[in-house]
Amino acid sequence: MMLNGEKKIARPLRWAMVGGGRLGQVGYKHRTGALRDNTAFQLVAGAFDIDPERGRDFGVNIGVAENRCYDDYKTMFGEEAAREDGIEVISIATPNGTHYEICKAALEAGLHVICEKPLFFTTDEVREIKSLAEEKGKIVGVTYGFSGNQMLLQMRAMIEQGKIGDIRVVDLQYTHGFNALEEEKPSDAQKWRVDPKIAGPSFVLGDLSTHTYYMSQLIMPNMKIKELLCDRQSFIKSRAPLEDNAHVLMHYENGAVGTMWTSSINAGCMDGHRIRIVGSKASLEWWDSKPGELTYEVQGEPIQTLIRAMPYLDESCNADERLGALHVEGLSDSWANIYLKFAVAIDAKSRGDEETLKNLVYPDIDAGLEGVRWIENCVRSAENGAVWVNFE
Amino acid sequence: MMLNGEKKIARPLRWAMVGGGRLGQVGYKHRTGALRDNTAFQLVAGAFDIDPERGRDFGVNIGVAENRCYDDYKTMFGEEAAREDGIEVISIATPNGTHYEICKAALEAGLHVICEKPLFFTTDEVREIKSLAEEKGKIVGVTYGFSGNQMLLQMRAMIEQGKIGDIRVVDLQYTHGFNALEEEKPSDAQKWRVDPKIAGPSFVLGDLSTHTYYMSQLIMPNMKIKELLCDRQSFIKSRAPLEDNAHVLMHYENGAVGTMWTSSINAGCMDGHRIRIVGSKASLEWWDSKPGELTYEVQGEPIQTLIRAMPYLDESCNADERLGALHVEGLSDSWANIYLKFAVAIDAKSRGDEETLKNLVYPDIDAGLEGVRWIENCVRSAENGAVWVNFE
Amino acid sequence: MMLNGEKKIARPLRWAMVGGGRLGQVGYKHRTGALRDNTAFQLVAGAFDIDPERGRDFGVNIGVAENRCYDDYKTMFGEEAAREDGIEVISIATPNGTHYEICKAALEAGLHVICEKPLFFTTDEVREIKSLAEEKGKIVGVTYGFSGNQMLLQMRAMIEQGKIGDIRVVDLQYTHGFNALEEEKPSDAQKWRVDPKIAGPSFVLGDLSTHTYYMSQLIMPNMKIKELLCDRQSFIKSRAPLEDNAHVLMHYENGAVGTMWTSSINAGCMDGHRIRIVGSKASLEWWDSKPGELTYEVQGEPIQTLIRAMPYLDESCNADERLGALHVEGLSDSWANIYLKFAVAIDAKSRGDEETLKNLVYPDIDAGLEGVRWIENCVRSAENGAVWVNFE
Amino acid sequence: MMLNGEKKIARPLRWAMVGGGRLGQVGYKHRTGALRDNTAFQLVAGAFDIDPERGRDFGVNIGVAENRCYDDYKTMFGEEAAREDGIEVISIATPNGTHYEICKAALEAGLHVICEKPLFFTTDEVREIKSLAEEKGKIVGVTYGFSGNQMLLQMRAMIEQGKIGDIRVVDLQYTHGFNALEEEKPSDAQKWRVDPKIAGPSFVLGDLSTHTYYMSQLIMPNMKIKELLCDRQSFIKSRAPLEDNAHVLMHYENGAVGTMWTSSINAGCMDGHRIRIVGSKASLEWWDSKPGELTYEVQGEPIQTLIRAMPYLDESCNADERLGALHVEGLSDSWANIYLKFAVAIDAKSRGDEETLKNLVYPDIDAGLEGVRWIENCVRSAENGAVWVNFE
Repeated sequence: MMLNGEKKIARPLRWAMVGGGRLGQVGYKHRTGALRDNTAFQLVAGAFDIDPERGRDFGVNIGVAENRCYDDYKTMFGEEAAREDGIEVISIATPNGTHYEICKAALEAGLHVICEKPLFFTTDEVREIKSLAEEKGKIVGVTYGFSGNQMLLQMRAMIEQGKIGDIRVVDLQYTHGFNALEEEKPSDAQKWRVDPKIAGPSFVLGDLSTHTYYMSQLIMPNMKIKELLCDRQSFIKSRAPLEDNAHVLMHYENGAVGTMWTSSINAGCMDGHRIRIVGSKASLEWWDSKPGELTYEVQGEPIQTLIRAMPYLDESCNADERLGALHVEGLSDSWANIYLKFAVAIDAKSRGDEETLKNLVYPDIDAGLEGVRWIENCVRSAENGAVWVNFE
Repeated sequence: MMLNGEKKIARPLRWAMVGGGRLGQVGYKHRTGALRDNTAFQLVAGAFDIDPERGRDFGVNIGVAENRCYDDYKTMFGEEAAREDGIEVISIATPNGTHYEICKAALEAGLHVICEKPLFFTTDEVREIKSLAEEKGKIVGVTYGFSGNQMLLQMRAMIEQGKIGDIRVVDLQYTHGFNALEEEKPSDAQKWRVDPKIAGPSFVLGDLSTHTYYMSQLIMPNMKIKELLCDRQSFIKSRAPLEDNAHVLMHYENGAVGTMWTSSINAGCMDGHRIRIVGSKASLEWWDSKPGELTYEVQGEPIQTLIRAMPYLDESCNADERLGALHVEGLSDSWANIYLKFAVAIDAKSRGDEETLKNLVYPDIDAGLEGVRWIENCVRSAENGAVWVNFE
Repeated sequence: MMLNGEKKIARPLRWAMVGGGRLGQVGYKHRTGALRDNTAFQLVAGAFDIDPERGRDFGVNIGVAENRCYDDYKTMFGEEAAREDGIEVISIATPNGTHYEICKAALEAGLHVICEKPLFFTTDEVREIKSLAEEKGKIVGVTYGFSGNQMLLQMRAMIEQGKIGDIRVVDLQYTHGFNALEEEKPSDAQKWRVDPKIAGPSFVLGDLSTHTYYMSQLIMPNMKIKELLCDRQSFIKSRAPLEDNAHVLMHYENGAVGTMWTSSINAGCMDGHRIRIVGSKASLEWWDSKPGELTYEVQGEPIQTLIRAMPYLDESCNADERLGALHVEGLSDSWANIYLKFAVAIDAKSRGDEETLKNLVYPDIDAGLEGVRWIENCVRSAENGAVWVNFE
Repeated sequence: MMLNGEKKIARPLRWAMVGGGRLGQVGYKHRTGALRDNTAFQLVAGAFDIDPERGRDFGVNIGVAENRCYDDYKTMFGEEAAREDGIEVISIATPNGTHYEICKAALEAGLHVICEKPLFFTTDEVREIKSLAEEKGKIVGVTYGFSGNQMLLQMRAMIEQGKIGDIRVVDLQYTHGFNALEEEKPSDAQKWRVDPKIAGPSFVLGDLSTHTYYMSQLIMPNMKIKELLCDRQSFIKSRAPLEDNAHVLMHYENGAVGTMWTSSINAGCMDGHRIRIVGSKASLEWWDSKPGELTYEVQGEPIQTLIRAMPYLDESCNADERLGALHVEGLSDSWANIYLKFAVAIDAKSRGDEETLKNLVYPDIDAGLEGVRWIENCVRSAENGAVWVNFE
């Protein structure tokens, strides 16, 4: 049975946002995901903007009560804690450099957290927050927003079922060209992304490739990187030391090899986000630009194109189906899938239902940890001259 | 500026559904569209199902108060009329044969109406309802759900700007193969579609081609059909007299010609919904399976592929943008666009703002009328032996 | 085993061309096909050009002995007949209006004939020439140059094997846009094509759609048209009465329906030559722009793309393979396949080997007859107001 | 003006083959290229097979006089030298390990040479042969068979004209999956390719990536590699030490970076040969599977697809045009282009026309040298643990 908006948890969670206001479109993606059916989350509060006035105006415009549009997240956590109907979960859609402190404060205020990627700057930070979340009994989810596409679960199922044989080559790419030209006046949304103080130790490795790396792990949970080599460049010099292009080579523990190309200077590229997994018998390939298609190429047989929502797909894939065959689902549907799983996870955690949690595939704090670990190792390799490093 | 959920009308409209319950996915598309941002509509009531119990259970599950989940639409219209916070607008997502009576009752109850296509069985019915709506000062919108894709507005703008020259050939297709095989036990959702008493005088002509015909009119508002010829078949005999395949030839008043192929027996076809407009200098082509792309082929020049959300697109196209470039929008975004325009239309109508209404491009009752007219003319031609008939 | 140039007949045939000189590229296609391996044909003479001097210069340039470059075809037929090593077969690559007389003269001179399409102006002419060819014991082949692509034989085999079920819809298209713009000074190669005295009763119906119609017959030899309706236009007025755009609807004897769109005003279209056959279980689709691919869509299953030269293809398909998988074959390979079959047919005819002839699938005079018949019926329908006519 | 078979040199060259017989299809590609129009080469002799009897039978079958079908190349060089009409140029289509000695013997016998890639085992060997060829005044051409596609010249022209800005990223791939499965009984044609004694120091690096590397150099003649890193694997263990998969990272002297993925275990991949050049303003991308298309992506503009044979293409591109727009050219046309240039080069060399030679873009011995150098550097890097090495 397809998703049709009927409730998956007893009642919607009371939800607030930190960031995600009018000056960018990222907050909209969160709301589009969270509020898809109004049965998983209800947006009841927010500290939407670094500019409190603008944030309040925005909050009211999207339907939040004026008195629950706060000047900043600390005030919000404090005041909401005092309400009987106070918030239960927040989403963080602010520049990277603030994730850690907001996340920590939220957990300490007894809130579940959903946070933008890359989660924090260092794996140490993530491990600390992971401990704190465990101590507080709270969920920390990470919005790898593309990863909710159900065709990725189809890939996972087929690989698990041996449909491609042993994995040999992992071919990952997330590139675009929107930063190919030197910008005379970068937007605020762009500027912080190349400021190491705010963005952390990477630009495209963090901003783009963590998505794809997580998706690869979602698809092939048993594949562990043993060592990698990262070669990165700042083609626009003002971005140095943060890279706008990087190539990574990976060696997996099972002998497979992999590559990741991530770039924001791939001029003109409009379909540069893709995953190909080559096995000993067959390959699977998925492009974010045609997210409802999956190419399954068995060596020596006709090429197969699997299409979303068809009965021949795995049950785990079709469980996330909303619109049905012939009807294109896109990024908003992917975000809706992720947010629904966050809600189910939070509900299960609150009820102490570890069984549900164990079986739920979603970007949790371990996924966030892996993303930061990926960046750390890539940067360590790159800074040592693009040499092989153990994946620590 | 992109759409980000901020309100376009003073407050959300109080909205109810007739039909659209658990036994099909169509109601979900309406809710996905209407409730995208919770600033245009709020779902406060419903008569969701022919089975009142199941409908009530469903309504509660999606968040409607139990006492506003009604046994049938008549009861709903009556009881809601007595409430101060009663519904203002309803959506009709029931089998075709009930549209007319529900629509009429709603208008008489002082409600705005949003209705599934094909609107009614006859143009006479549509004209009657149009008069009634005008008399009551209410909006009747029709959910041509694919037509909200903003690339269609790009096509409209380019044609209006002369980018393809004079239109010569219109090449329309909406086909799939989901009814290629004789079903031993058709689902309820399928069965009524080939029963003339419930579906009306056509199957695929109404169920599929009215979408595409409307979209062609949206794109080329000045193109008027002069005469047409329709050849239809029922390849699965039990469907006769309703067709599962039809070809239509059109002659336009300006000398252009057109074709429509509509079918549900195009076995295996998963990308059969498309529009190509051939002009004297260039052509435009759009496929529903890749809704964010538009092919612009100028004779003698490199083929151009225009991509959603790019700055080079027309303002009217980008005004409906939500996610931004590289981020796939799909059918749910298209429905959201249409519903937002319904809300703006209803709000404008209520405020007597005819200027806004005049400039708003959306599937109104005239679009519904044209769809029924299209079917009527096609069927008249087909029943006379696939001969040319004037488009009356 | 793939084709590798080894001889298929005892010795190469002595071959000449009528037309096909320097002022167009059509003759080159013939030579590319005929001389692919130098084991089927040898070009030993020619009357290449309406301008004898230019024709002689050209002939010498491509390696023909000067004394066998003739002023006109009549002289050639006469003088070659007097040689011991005289020509055995000619190819006609002249404007349509001359085909009949050259063909007749060649047969009367005891020569086999290979002729451009459309063969002649009327079916009566074709029937007369067919009788003459039978009387003389000679082959008349027709250069439907695209039809040598072996993937068409794959389609034929799959349909014959029931892989798509019963045929329901035949969807044919051969369109381009190279005549979309009114030419102030059309080239000679272009001008005669819209002069009924030279081109015959049609422009694109003959020049383009006869190819596709033949290919459809090659693929589905058992499908017979019962009646058809043709609607044709001359969008560039100076072309009237010859059409630059036409749509044809077909009714086949088995209840299937079909459409053909042929046009040279489909502005910007660079991939407008395609064939889709819809069966009761599955569909097959082939595009001339990707001639090594075949889409096989079984309703309810993943889409299959079959690729040229793979072992899973039918033996009849792979028998025409030259380059092997991953290596693109194009139009020149298609012509080579056809010409090789002409050589085999001529050789068999000369040896009285009717068994070989019976099993050889190639565009023979019956294929030429069917093409002219197609045009005749289309034109008759069009001239009577685009009405249904029996396929006579 | 398009190529139409008219002679480009005074008379066809007398040509022979060493290898290229019945047991593989490679010789056919040579003949298809050389003999396309019979005005550049004539096949007059051969030592086609290691088995003289089979070779003679084959030679006669493709039209070579029996007495010029020789037992081995040494005999051929000797006997032909004694003839007045003896051969002038040979093509070598034998396993890699024999190229050097045959090439040397041919030059010493006063013959021009056309040789399969990879040319020899070491750059030292190539340099020696280059000296010998210079001394003898002979041409050595290398059959990078894909490189004759004229769209590569279009890329070259556009890059030279600054149409993509400064080159930043070079993205090369030549992969397929035909060796994904362990073969119990590899064919002879396959077996030698993984025997270092016969194949040389590499498998796919030599067999596949040298093509693509040459094509990249053809496209961007000014781009010089400074250092590279190669990581190679033998997924089928019996192939070790020869690789069936490799990834190479390149640093160019101008600061650009590049990648090459070459593989024969990319299971199911049927379109794995491609070149993408990313510049500071735009990118160009070409796929061997659609060789007549070129994607030109200017950042911020609609994607452009350039199509073969159109007037908007560069003169250097259209100079190699044979069939015209809408007519697919494939690998045989590419080989024909290369062989025609070999003929022009040989003719010019014989005439002492250094001007023509200087301006002719074709795979000469320097191209062969670069291919061997590429392999040498890749192997040196791989054998040292996939480390960066200077490109020596």
